[in-house]
Amino acid sequence: MESFPSNSTVRRSSLLLLRVIISVFLLIALVLISITSQTVGGAKFKFTQVYSFRYMLAVIVIGLVYSLIQTSLAIFSMVSGDDVFKGKIANIFNFYADKIISYLLATGAAAGLGASEDLHRIFDATLNLNLDDFFAKANTSASFLFIAFICSAIASIYSSYELPT
Amino acid sequence: MESFPSNSTVRRSSLLLLRVIISVFLLIALVLISITSQTVGGAKFKFTQVYSFRYMLAVIVIGLVYSLIQTSLAIFSMVSGDDVFKGKIANIFNFYADKIISYLLATGAAAGLGASEDLHRIFDATLNLNLDDFFAKANTSASFLFIAFICSAIASIYSSYELPT
Repeated sequence: MESFPSNSTVRRSSLLLLRVIISVFLLIALVLISITSQTVGGAKFKFTQVYSFRYMLAVIVIGLVYSLIQTSLAIFSMVSGDDVFKGKIANIFNFYADKIISYLLATGAAAGLGASEDLHRIFDATLNLNLDDFFAKANTSASFLFIAFICSAIASIYSSYELPT
Repeated sequence: MESFPSNSTVRRSSLLLLRVIISVFLLIALVLISITSQTVGGAKFKFTQVYSFRYMLAVIVIGLVYSLIQTSLAIFSMVSGDDVFKGKIANIFNFYADKIISYLLATGAAAGLGASEDLHRIFDATLNLNLDDFFAKANTSASFLFIAFICSAIASIYSSYELPT
């Protein structure tokens, strides 16, 4: 049983690393979507005019709050040497929370990537409006959100293995 | 231990029911997205012109093939009384497959719902093109895909509990 504490430490360290990466990527996505605006021909375009981008913002904020709380708990547990959030209830909570958050991030990234791609093409083709800068920012934000989703899907696999049987 | 076979039968029956619902809803979504086209002012609009709808179609086809295979396996197992796909490897495969398929359906539904909403508004506002019929079909297809995603997320919870520890 010697390998158990070490295994558990490796698992907790990699899960913490994932949560830090998720937080950082969501923070970058948040900044990028917030500054997504462009003035073309006197008309100002803001990300709030596109519903998919608004949804992205909501998803990013929810995901960021959740992952910052989980990161803090994980760091606190590591530093104090005592797992502050453990046991059957904690494992079940983490399983469902990680799963729901990863689905939210997935839908946010998909809506953002789809909207920026399709709207960009239509604005280019039909309205002759050059909104490259606008859609580049939104698209980059959605890409960071997508990487955060991939990391949260992996975190969700971790927490599935912690499910009590 | 008398309750075990009964519990397992209940679980298998509800999982089969879920897979049948997923298959039916994906089939409806497939039909709806395939007939998404409209002719306005001599110009023909087809769903293939919107990348998000193309992605939706791809996701629906992958999800449908997967859920039909799983439904067939489940029905065959129930009829023959012998689980044809069981054991540790089968459980791990189901866990990852259900998870990946549910993420795919989630992203497809999100991209479809986002695109139909935002594109519809922009076509209405800027191009004065009445594409209500076109976007209504695409939106309904995405809604069926969304319900299929919810069912697949529940199926994915089932298969997480079957994970060997």
